Amino acid sequence: MTSEAITVLGLGNLGRALAETFVRGGHSVTVWNRSPAKAAGLAATGATTAAEAVAASELVVVAVLDHQAAQQVLSGVDVRGRALVNLTSGTVDEARELARWASANGAEYLHGAVYAVPQTIGTDASSIIYSGSSAVSERWQKSLELLGKVTFLGEDAGRASGYDVAILSGMYGLIGGFLHAAALARAGGIKATDLTPMLLSWLTDMHPALVTFAEEIDSGNYGGGESSLAMNQSGLATLIRAGQGVPFAALDSLKALVDQQVAEGHGEESLARVVESFGVVSQRLAGRQ
Amino acid sequence: MTSEAITVLGLGNLGRALAETFVRGGHSVTVWNRSPAKAAGLAATGATTAAEAVAASELVVVAVLDHQAAQQVLSGVDVRGRALVNLTSGTVDEARELARWASANGAEYLHGAVYAVPQTIGTDASSIIYSGSSAVSERWQKSLELLGKVTFLGEDAGRASGYDVAILSGMYGLIGGFLHAAALARAGGIKATDLTPMLLSWLTDMHPALVTFAEEIDSGNYGGGESSLAMNQSGLATLIRAGQGVPFAALDSLKALVDQQVAEGHGEESLARVVESFGVVSQRLAGRQ
Ligand SMILES: NC(=O)c1ccc[n+]([C@@H]2O[C@H](COP(=O)([O-])OP(=O)(O)OC[C@H]3O[C@@H](n4cnc5c(N)ncnc54)[C@H](OP(=O)(O)O)[C@@H]3O)[C@@H](O)[C@H]2O)c1
Ligand SMILES: NC(=O)c1ccc[n+]([C@@H]2O[C@H](COP(=O)([O-])OP(=O)(O)OC[C@H]3O[C@@H](n4cnc5c(N)ncnc54)[C@H](OP(=O)(O)O)[C@@H]3O)[C@@H](O)[C@H]2O)c1
Repeated sequence: MTSEAITVLGLGNLGRALAETFVRGGHSVTVWNRSPAKAAGLAATGATTAAEAVAASELVVVAVLDHQAAQQVLSGVDVRGRALVNLTSGTVDEARELARWASANGAEYLHGAVYAVPQTIGTDASSIIYSGSSAVSERWQKSLELLGKVTFLGEDAGRASGYDVAILSGMYGLIGGFLHAAALARAGGIKATDLTPMLLSWLTDMHPALVTFAEEIDSGNYGGGESSLAMNQSGLATLIRAGQGVPFAALDSLKALVDQQVAEGHGEESLARVVESFGVVSQRLAGRQ
Repeated sequence: MTSEAITVLGLGNLGRALAETFVRGGHSVTVWNRSPAKAAGLAATGATTAAEAVAASELVVVAVLDHQAAQQVLSGVDVRGRALVNLTSGTVDEARELARWASANGAEYLHGAVYAVPQTIGTDASSIIYSGSSAVSERWQKSLELLGKVTFLGEDAGRASGYDVAILSGMYGLIGGFLHAAALARAGGIKATDLTPMLLSWLTDMHPALVTFAEEIDSGNYGGGESSLAMNQSGLATLIRAGQGVPFAALDSLKALVDQQVAEGHGEESLARVVESFGVVSQRLAGRQ
């Protein structure tokens, strides 16, 4: 147990879970939220302003809606000597911008991307990837480990957000596909709870194929695929036709990428080659409008 | 070991793996393919016509490109007394249509959807879901089990395709999301092979949330979600902004569904409620064009 002081700025769903976890871990916690009512019921000191909260602790953890909110909260606040740990979601550039701002204002900056829901913060199901100040990551390791598994990705403050953007995009692919699957099943009189075990088992079985795709993408060698672009072009066409009563334009978007690769003569190569078409196809489609 | 005769129509990647597996399982196998050269090297009897191949065995397994190809192959062939097992991908209606055709022509019909790549046919990694004639499924159970795990979904020949369409849509969501994630990572200087272990681990961690979504969808009760539509609306907006150099319209398609639910006043309810918007939003977007 430690009684080191920690400040939490933002008491939304995430911020509140962070503050509670630090309290449970023995820290003396100071909190601030734009709407003061959200501090009610926390075994923490409520500060009247963000500046007052920042003055109370060396470690300042930020979890607000978005980058703009984080900027507003920190703007004009004296952060000299502070270790800022920002768990607000944002882009690579936004994280780097705040890191530069922190450095110019005498603070150290560590950015984190949270893989947890508020309910699982502080449990084994929580994982946070960080990048930025290794000094902060080392000095506050024990406290950060209270929140969940810690992965440090190096000194570039934008790197965690780079992983995060990619991981979230993969997650929304999974979720969008799942919800479309449930809608298609329902249209065919199949319950989502009957479908789900079979679907999830098959999605897990796909993971080794994705590992192979990753190797193909890094090597740029798309030659040896088991899952050719041509086969997937035909599979997607069948699927889009089969789902006509319950369409989902995401399938058409993927097929447009596959179509482009096939049109360029790569039909017998791996589906993974689609990575070469993101951006290109969208730019072409935008040009057509 | 059995020496019962089995016929395989279609020697593409899948058909060839099926024929080889039946041969290894001790069956005497007759094969036919539109291009005869593909029968070379198989320890099976090559037939000159599909009709000749069908005459050779009670069990006839079909694996050709698509429904139209299956219709062409079977058209005019005497299938009386045959057990037709069709592993060609297609829609619910297509499977039911072939089941009616089989019945009108004195054959029994079982439709199967294959979860395997040709290389894994006959191994533990292969799973096939069937629906249609339970008589065929029982009579030929041992032979079908040679190919992979057997799941029988009832007498409606279209049901396996209903599951299949849903499972494939879920799979393409996963794959499209993965490939976009890899493209985003690459744009940020991150290797796909560095990203993939973290991404797959997080996607697996998401599975329980999808099980909860399924329960919400079946009950129509979207009230208690941990992952609200409003939160995901903001998350998707951030993500689309963050990925601007490497856009993927699939994210915009998902966001359009979320936007509609939020606009209808469901922002605090579960993301799973998006299932109610498939079709509706696409129809509206189509109406706008
Ligand atoms: N919840 C999760 O499971 C989760 C997981 C991973 C990452 N995240 C990320 O963590 C961050 C916070 O998420 P959350 O779930 O806690 O969101 P939330 O419940 O919606 O809370 C948003 C918080 O931001 C504050 N805020 C918004 N605009 C502000 C502004 N202009 N100035 C000051 N404060 C402002 C709100 O204050 P008021 O109370 O005054 O409105 C509230 O405390 C987001 O970037 C989110 O993407 C969340
Ligand atoms: N491969 C897999 O991993 C996999 C997994 C699950 C499901 N499936 C499904 O299984 C089916 C076959 O897949 P596959 O990978 O074997 O495909 P494939 O390698 O492309 O082979 C297609 C086969 O269909 C034949 N064909 C095409 N049009 C025809 C026509 N009009 N008349 C007669 N024969 C015709 C081809 O004959 P020619 O040799 O004369 O061209 C060839 O034998 C597809 O529906 C696919 O969706 C495949």
